[in-house]
Amino acid sequence: MTSQDKSKLYIGLDIGRTIRGAVVRGDSTILERRQIVAEVRDPLEFIKQLVHMIDGFAAETAGRSAISAVGIGWPGLINQRMNRLEVTPNMLDLSSFDLYGELAKQTGLPIVFENDANAGAYGEWCAGAARGFKDVLFVALGTGIGAGLILDGRLQRGALGFGGEFGHFKIEAGGMECGCGSTGCLETMVSGPNIVRRVREHLFSDPSFSVSQLAGDMEGVLTCERIKEAAREDDELARAVLRETGVFLGMALASVINLLNVEMVVMGGGVMTSGEVLIEPIREETRSRTIPAAFNCCRIVAGELGLDAGIVGAAMLARDATNKN
Amino acid sequence: MTSQDKSKLYIGLDIGRTIRGAVVRGDSTILERRQIVAEVRDPLEFIKQLVHMIDGFAAETAGRSAISAVGIGWPGLINQRMNRLEVTPNMLDLSSFDLYGELAKQTGLPIVFENDANAGAYGEWCAGAARGFKDVLFVALGTGIGAGLILDGRLQRGALGFGGEFGHFKIEAGGMECGCGSTGCLETMVSGPNIVRRVREHLFSDPSFSVSQLAGDMEGVLTCERIKEAAREDDELARAVLRETGVFLGMALASVINLLNVEMVVMGGGVMTSGEVLIEPIREETRSRTIPAAFNCCRIVAGELGLDAGIVGAAMLARDATNKN
Repeated sequence: MTSQDKSKLYIGLDIGRTIRGAVVRGDSTILERRQIVAEVRDPLEFIKQLVHMIDGFAAETAGRSAISAVGIGWPGLINQRMNRLEVTPNMLDLSSFDLYGELAKQTGLPIVFENDANAGAYGEWCAGAARGFKDVLFVALGTGIGAGLILDGRLQRGALGFGGEFGHFKIEAGGMECGCGSTGCLETMVSGPNIVRRVREHLFSDPSFSVSQLAGDMEGVLTCERIKEAAREDDELARAVLRETGVFLGMALASVINLLNVEMVVMGGGVMTSGEVLIEPIREETRSRTIPAAFNCCRIVAGELGLDAGIVGAAMLARDATNKN
Repeated sequence: MTSQDKSKLYIGLDIGRTIRGAVVRGDSTILERRQIVAEVRDPLEFIKQLVHMIDGFAAETAGRSAISAVGIGWPGLINQRMNRLEVTPNMLDLSSFDLYGELAKQTGLPIVFENDANAGAYGEWCAGAARGFKDVLFVALGTGIGAGLILDGRLQRGALGFGGEFGHFKIEAGGMECGCGSTGCLETMVSGPNIVRRVREHLFSDPSFSVSQLAGDMEGVLTCERIKEAAREDDELARAVLRETGVFLGMALASVINLLNVEMVVMGGGVMTSGEVLIEPIREETRSRTIPAAFNCCRIVAGELGLDAGIVGAAMLARDATNKN
C-alpha cells in the first residue's frame, strides 16, 4: 500500500438493530462517527437510512468524490462469489431487494459487503489486538456468536464466503434446540441472551443462590453487563455462570486451536466489552482441553477495538478490495 | 510447474508401524513401492530403515541423482518454523536424535517433513477426490484421527505447523478421558479401536444384540473391516454402531463446515478403505446439523487414493517445496 492509499477515506458501516458508521482513513483512524436505530420493518426506509448516512459522511468530508469506497459489515451470510446477501437477519425482509445493487446505484460508490464477524476480525487484525499476527481466530460474542479467521495472513471466507458460523459449533450431541435447526449449538448456551437465561435458571433451581445480588434483578431487565459487574464483586452466582460460559467456549476454542493451530484468539463483540472477568475462565478451560504444544503458542485476549472492530474492518476491507489492482 | 518438473522423481514415505514408500513422478504417478515393518524399539535401526529404503529406491531408478527430494508423512506434530519433530508417536523414542538432520546428511537429498494427515490431504488434492477444489477438509480415520485442511487453494498448517488435530475435537463436555489429557475428544469414540470397543460394549450391555453375527467374533480379533462387512450384510449391531459413529463425526464435521465453509470433506485413512457403508451415516448426520446454505455447497466423499494418499502427498509436498524458487 502506498502512503497515498493510507490517506484516502473510506466509510465503514456495521449493521445491526443499530446502524453504526464512520469515516475511516486508510491508516485505520476513525475520523467521524454516526449511528441510528435501523428501520427494520421497512426495507425501503432501511435502504434510505444507509444512503443518507453515506451522503452525510460525504457532505462532512469533501463530497462523495472524497470517499474511495464503502465497506459494510453484514449480520448474515454473504455469497461472495455472487455478490449476494444469501441469508439476511430475520429482523429484515430484503427478499425483494438487491441491496448491493441499490446502494451502488444510489451512492455511485464501490460497495463491499462482508460478514460482520469477518469484518470485526479484519479490524482487530489491521488495527487492534491481532496486529502483526498471521493465524488468528476472532470471536464476536453478542446477541449471537460469529467468528472470523485469518490464516496464513489472509482472511478466510470459505468456498462461498459463508465461513465463520462459530455459534453453531456443536458442544452436546443432544442439547437445546437452536434457531439453525440443529441442537447443542454453542450459541444456545453462551450468547448474551443465553448467559442471562442461565442466570435466571440457576436462581430458579438452586435456593442457595437467592443471596446473590442478581436475585434482585430478576423482576427487571437483567443484562450481561450487570452479570459481569456482579462477578467483579465476587457474586457467586455470577461467577458460576461465567465459569460455565468458559467451559462451553473452552470446548469449542480447544477444538479450533487443535485443528487450526492459531496463534491468537481475540474475543470481541458486545458481551466482551469490559469483559476481562470473562477472559480468565475462558482461558483456563481452553488450556485444560487443548493439546499443550498448540495451546502454548496461542494467546487468548480481549479485543482492543470493542464495537469499532467491525466498522474499522469493513472500511479496511473496502480499502483493500479497491486497491487490489 | 513446467513439464520438466512433472517428469522429475520424488520419494514419498508414510511412517507408521509400517513404513510405506514409493517413487512418485512429478505428475503424481506412483512408479515403485516398498514397505517394511518399522523397528520402533531401536531409533538407530529405524533411521537405518529409512535410509535403506531411500537408497533402494535410488538404486532402482538411476541413483540418488535421479531423485529430486524426499517427502515424509510423519505421525506427530511438526514444528515447521524450526524444522523440528515436536511430538513423536509414543511408539518411538527419538528424543536424542535429529531425524531431519540425520536423513539429510546420510542421503544427501532435500528432506521435507509433513504431518501425515496433511500429507494425505495434499495427496487427495493433487491426485485424488479433491482435485480442482479450493476449500477442502481431509479426515484420516485410522488408529487415531488426523485432518488436513486446504483453504483458498493452500495447505493450512497453522502458526507452527501443528494444525489438523481433528481427533481432539470436543464432542462432550464430560466424556471419556483421552490420551491428550482432555476428555470428550472425538478420537475416544470414532477411531478404529474405539469403534471396535463400542461394538463390544453394546454386545455386553444389550442382550438383543446377541443375535448379531459379530457376537461370534467376541472371543477372537474383532476388526473394523469385519464390522463394515457385517453392516453391508444388514447386521443390526454393526449398523447401529456405524450410525452412532456418524453422529459423533457429524457433530464435528458440522462444526467445521459451519466455521470454514469447505466445499468438500474427504474421508480417508484405514477405517475408510472400502468404507462406503460408513459415508452414508456420516453424510446424513452432518446434513442434519449443518446450516443448510453451508451444507448444500459441500460434498462429503470417500478418498480415492486409499492408503496411497499420504505417500503421494508427501512426495508432491517435496516437489512443491523444492520447486518453489
